Parts: sequence; C-alpha cells; structure tokens
Amino acid sequence: MALKSFIEVGPDSHFPIQNLPFGIFKPEPTSPPRPGVAIGDYVLDLSAISVSGLFDGPFLSGSDCFLQPNLNKFLALGRPAWKEARATLQNLLSADEAKLRDNPNLREKSLVPMSKVEMLLPIAIGDYTDFFSSMHHARNCGIMFRGPENAINPNWFQLPIAYHGRSSSIVVSGTDIIRPRGQGHPSGNSPPYFGPSRKLDFELEMAAVVGPGNELGKPVDVNEAGDHIFGLVLMNDWSARDIQAWEYVPLGPFLGKSFGTTLSPWIVTLDALEPFACDAPKQDPQPLPYLAEKISKNYDISLEVQIKPAGQEDSCVVTRSNFNHLYWTVTQQLAHHTINGCNLRPGDLLGSGTISGPEPESYGCLLELTWNGQKSLSLNGTTRKFLEDGDEVVFSGCSKGDGYKVGFGTCSGKILPSP
Amino acid sequence: MALKSFIEVGPDSHFPIQNLPFGIFKPEPTSPPRPGVAIGDYVLDLSAISVSGLFDGPFLSGSDCFLQPNLNKFLALGRPAWKEARATLQNLLSADEAKLRDNPNLREKSLVPMSKVEMLLPIAIGDYTDFFSSMHHARNCGIMFRGPENAINPNWFQLPIAYHGRSSSIVVSGTDIIRPRGQGHPSGNSPPYFGPSRKLDFELEMAAVVGPGNELGKPVDVNEAGDHIFGLVLMNDWSARDIQAWEYVPLGPFLGKSFGTTLSPWIVTLDALEPFACDAPKQDPQPLPYLAEKISKNYDISLEVQIKPAGQEDSCVVTRSNFNHLYWTVTQQLAHHTINGCNLRPGDLLGSGTISGPEPESYGCLLELTWNGQKSLSLNGTTRKFLEDGDEVVFSGCSKGDGYKVGFGTCSGKILPSP
Repeated sequence: MALKSFIEVGPDSHFPIQNLPFGIFKPEPTSPPRPGVAIGDYVLDLSAISVSGLFDGPFLSGSDCFLQPNLNKFLALGRPAWKEARATLQNLLSADEAKLRDNPNLREKSLVPMSKVEMLLPIAIGDYTDFFSSMHHARNCGIMFRGPENAINPNWFQLPIAYHGRSSSIVVSGTDIIRPRGQGHPSGNSPPYFGPSRKLDFELEMAAVVGPGNELGKPVDVNEAGDHIFGLVLMNDWSARDIQAWEYVPLGPFLGKSFGTTLSPWIVTLDALEPFACDAPKQDPQPLPYLAEKISKNYDISLEVQIKPAGQEDSCVVTRSNFNHLYWTVTQQLAHHTINGCNLRPGDLLGSGTISGPEPESYGCLLELTWNGQKSLSLNGTTRKFLEDGDEVVFSGCSKGDGYKVGFGTCSGKILPSP
Repeated sequence: MALKSFIEVGPDSHFPIQNLPFGIFKPEPTSPPRPGVAIGDYVLDLSAISVSGLFDGPFLSGSDCFLQPNLNKFLALGRPAWKEARATLQNLLSADEAKLRDNPNLREKSLVPMSKVEMLLPIAIGDYTDFFSSMHHARNCGIMFRGPENAINPNWFQLPIAYHGRSSSIVVSGTDIIRPRGQGHPSGNSPPYFGPSRKLDFELEMAAVVGPGNELGKPVDVNEAGDHIFGLVLMNDWSARDIQAWEYVPLGPFLGKSFGTTLSPWIVTLDALEPFACDAPKQDPQPLPYLAEKISKNYDISLEVQIKPAGQEDSCVVTRSNFNHLYWTVTQQLAHHTINGCNLRPGDLLGSGTISGPEPESYGCLLELTWNGQKSLSLNGTTRKFLEDGDEVVFSGCSKGDGYKVGFGTCSGKILPSP
C-alpha cells in the first residue's frame, strides 16, 4: 500500500509524501527566508523542524544547513545527507507517526498554508550552464537556419553541446519578464534594427541542480555523476530570437538570453523521481568511453506549456513534451562538463536545452511551433507567432505514479512591455 | 612636483602612491583574508586602517567594507566611496603626513612586506563575461578559420561581441593550470580525438571589474557606464584550441576555456589610470545611439607576455601589446551588456578579449603568433607552437608616467601535465 501522510493530499496534487521537493520560502513578507518542503497544500518549515531537533540522523544532527537562506549548504552535504533528510521527513509526515501529527504546537510552528507563503529562488547559483540535448530541437533549429542537409553539426552526436548562461538574471517563477531591447539583423544597407525584441519566445527546459561538485582539475566519472545531482526544476530559458540570430556568430548566444531565465521554486529530488526512471535513447554513434554509462537513465516527466494572453480568463495549452526525449542524459552532461577539469559547485545549474519531442505538437518553443513565425499558432480565438506583451507563460510538469503524482508545480512569467 | 609617499618607492616599481591598487591578502598563512593596497614593496592592511578609524570621510566612516574577505562590499558603494578611499590613502601615505608615518605601532600593524603575503582573488565573481573587442585578433582568427574574404562577421562592427564565461574556475596569479583533456576533431571516419589538449594557448587580456551594477530591466546609459567600473586587472584566458575548434559550433566556446582563467591580484582603479586615458579608435560604421559615447576613452597600458620553459633560468618575451588597441571601449561593453535589461552585480568581470595589436610582434596569443601552429616561435634556443608542460606564462602591464609607473604587477601560471 502506498505511503500516506497525516496531511490530506488529493490524488491530483503534485506534492504527496512520495515527492517532498525542497524550496526556500518566507512564511510572512517580513520573515527571513528558510528551507521548506511541499506537502499537499502546505509547506513544512525545515528551520522549525531542525530547531526542534528532529533531524537526528548522523549526517544532519547538529547541522545548521536548514537555518540558511538557500539550500547550498544542504546541497554540499551530498546524497547520504539528502537521503537521510528524505527518510526523516517521510517518517515525520507519515500517517502512522505521532511526533508531528500529535504535537499541535509544532504543527502550528512548522506547517504553513502554501497559499500564504512567498517562494524565493531555492539556490544561490554560482554558474549556470545550458545544454542543447534534445535531438528534435537541434534538428528543427538546424533545418530552419542551415537547411535539412546540414541540420545537425557532427559534433552534436559526439558530445553534449552547451554554453555558459547568465546567473544574475535567473529569477523565480512569478517574476515578470521585461521585453528586452536590442539589435536585430540589418535589412539591406540600413543599420541594424534596434528596439524591443519582435521575436520573444519561451524555451521549455528542465535544469539539474548540482550537489557537492568537484575540485578544479578533478573530473567526475560518468558513473558517479548521479551522486552530484540533487534534483530537477522546470526552467523557462526566455529567448529573443531576433537578438540571438544577429549576435550569436561566432561566440554563441548572449543578450538574446541574458535578460531573464525563470525557475520553478521546488526542486524535485532524483530520489523522488527514481520510480519514474526509464531507459535513455540509444546513442549512435556510441559515445566515447568517458561518456559511456553503465546505466543510462532518463525520467518520464510529462511537460506542458500554457499561454494566457492579457485579459483572457483561460490559458491555452500550446505544447506537450516529456523529459525522456533528451538524447544526452544529465549524468553525461555533468561528466562532460568536468572532463576538462572544470569545477562544479553546490547550487550550479545544468539546463537541459529546449525539450522538443518528435511530433509538431511536442515542440518546446514558439520558434519551432510557428516555424520561425512562418505560421500562426491558434490560441482560444486569437493567434501567436511570438509572445506579445501581457502574455503569461506557464510550464507544468509531473510524473504519474499509481494513485499519486510527483510534480514540479508550475514555472510561470508574464511579459511586460519594454520601458 | 609629483606626490611622494613616506615609503621609499623606486622609479620602476609598479606601485607608487599614484597607483594604490586594491587586492585581498593574508599576512600569515593562517590569518583571515582582508583588503589591502600595494605601496612599493609593502601591502597596506586596510582592515587595520579601518579599525584605527582613519577612514573618516562621509562614505566610509563606520563602514565594514574593509573588514570583508573580498572587495565586493566596497565595490557596491560606488565611485564617491572609491574616490574617498583613494584620497584618504594617498593622504595617509604621503611623505608630508605624520598620522601613519610617525606612528610605529600602527605601521607595524598595517604595513606588511609584499614578499611575505599570500594574495587571493580580490573579488567574489558572480558572472564573468568575455568580449572579443580587438579588431586585429578578430581579423586574424577570421582569416585562419574562414579565409580573408569573410574574416570579420558584419555584426562585429555593430556591437561588442561577447560570450558568458565560467566563474568557478577563475584563479589568482600563481595558481598552476592543469592541461585539460577533451575531444578534438575526428580525422576522417575515426571517432574524435580524446586526450590531453595538443593546442594549449594563453590569451593576453585585461578585465574590467564591475562596481555597483544595475537592477534587472534597467539598462545603464553608455555615458554613465564609467561609474560602474572600479578598475582593471590582467587576465589570462587560457584556451585549448583543439577542444574549442571542435565544440564551438553553434553555441560558442565552452570546455576549451572553462578549465582555468587567471587574474592578477591587484585591481588598478580607473582613477589611477585616468592620466593614461587616450582616444579610442575611430569607429566605422558609427555605432548605434545606445553605444555612441560623448567621450570615448581607452587607456595607454603597455602589455607584455613572457614564457619560461621548465628548467630554464630565463624567460623570453613572446609578445608586446597595448590595451589601447581595443576597438570597443569598456564603457561600450558595459552599456551593451545591459541594453537588454541584464543586471550586473558588484564583482562581475568583463574580459576584453585577446588584445592583439596590428603588428605580428603584438599578437596576443600563440594561435596568432604561430598562425595556428604553422610556424614556430623561437624561445631562447628552443621553440614553441603551443604551450608545453612546465611552461610558465607571465603577463605584465603598466602605464608610464613622468618619473613613475602605474602598473599591474604580473599575472602568471604554470602548465602541469594532464593527470
């Protein structure tokens, strides 16, 4: 029989006792930020649990990792501490355990209705790397910009292509995104276009949150890379396609991306996702030995993007995809990232790249869905080629178990006009 | 008559009272890191000066910015505080001022011989951006990889091209650099090369250190950008050319750079460099209005690179260049970086890109000096196409005033073999 919490959690909730994702929240606008886990419609305040001495296992007893304004210190402790925290919390919240259930004072102090809290970025992000790991996305972009013959560059099949992203402009779900200004291609002999981006897009991504990390000069073995990944979040890597197209040769995307990147507030742990692990796609050609995994895993996570235009009541689903479409696994990404000796630090973020599936209905951005604006997307009586001011973009994602879901909640942002 | 300090400083020193660059140091291996300025052969401990109450101006009195393990808090205060610190220190160190000169107890506490201290990274770097602002470098690379007709992409003359770099692997001068392993181009139908890089290179760069920065969504005007730049450092953006060449299409450099970037420990302030300001090169085509500066400044800073092979007594100069060769100014770089709303934070780093001059003797990296290994560079009886294990690369830079120098000291690193 499935584990149950003493807190009532409906079958459609993203946050049953099987999930317990970690985040950072403020119970009141003036309270200091602190770690919490989501359980049903509540947030369990881990600082209160920690102060009460209930983290009494060997790794967490006496640690102040839950008295911090971000999760970085907890992430640095590594998988044994993560597993201990999960076991402690699953026990504490289970229907059969009286410690918290029958302690009204502690319940009052530690359980906060989710509707009342403010969620913050869960981590201080030192470095953010964005990969390009969906073959369908790479192929579609390649066909659009280089034609079907050279759609995917040969290096793509040999290594997980990536670039460094901008950390400072990463924001938590719910933060408005201001339409960026910038340069676009000149037409004819005119100077380049300058003004608000005319091709503002979302990118449906997920990102892995790095745990302990590695020392400079010491690569992580691909078969041990899983121990360096705490969990996953939803990520919207907002993109200004016109700015990106003009600037990106030869050094890659820069201002077309760095105006904002949105993360979902809850980090779902790899431990919670383990029941939804599935085989990664077969890779051909076979990867070089440093990328060859004994077990090559993806996760079955259903993803959905909705757009809610300004002034409309209803939002409209524009794409449905799945994390399991990725060609390169997160463990391969991490091993590749460190093979040159590059050091990863707790809280670093590894974006997946846009997660497109094989079908047109599963493409992960408007660039692909509207084929660079060549066709329109129908949206509850209106249409879109790219995002318009006032559009709210909402990602959601979850894995479906037997009678329960392990979900990520939502990752959303609304477009404000350029100043 | 030139300002003089009560501490004897020779005419060839990089650190007379006209300079006063800021850094972070440990007087003893076990002491906590603290801010200091270089004066002749000494480091003045700013924590000791601060505790003594000698920073008594309106911006710094009562501030704990000099009791921090990095300069970020001081950088956040902005130019008025920087100017006040400089004026206070120039006064305190001047030959005519008794406060420190005639206080043996305070001198003992605050002046540490430079030969005894350990220098650390002066800043905690949130984001590191690397520009590509030398036309000579862009042209040389373009000719090598795309031929003379398409040497420089048209976007290069319209905007300061840049990419996001890796912050975690930035190290202070003197840190060894481990030769990275990685993939290189396949030959024929073989799988890609994998192993230690065979084309390890230095890149002669300088970097601007960002001060207060800006809020997300609020671009910095190009004519106010100077107030956001605290000063400059020397930077070696080590590069593995074979890794870079295979990976960089289409998203830019990644593992070819992220194994290590070396900074000089002393940040020379723009205030100290002001006497060496000079006109920036004329830009054609004229930049768009958001990049058009009322006053477009470069700085006359002579730069030199030496290589010292393992086991040799002497190092050999391999190139001489100058910061004033840059086509895009640091203020244009900063304004461009924020035009899309991207936020900069105190301690962010803006690399110049490789600083090559017009003459072959002034090229800023081995890629250009040996034309991608097509010719050899002679080096005290031996030769180099790219760096070999044991090579120590030493950058130095300084501006020459009338009877004094404002210098950066050195920025060095030695290549260790791949593990």
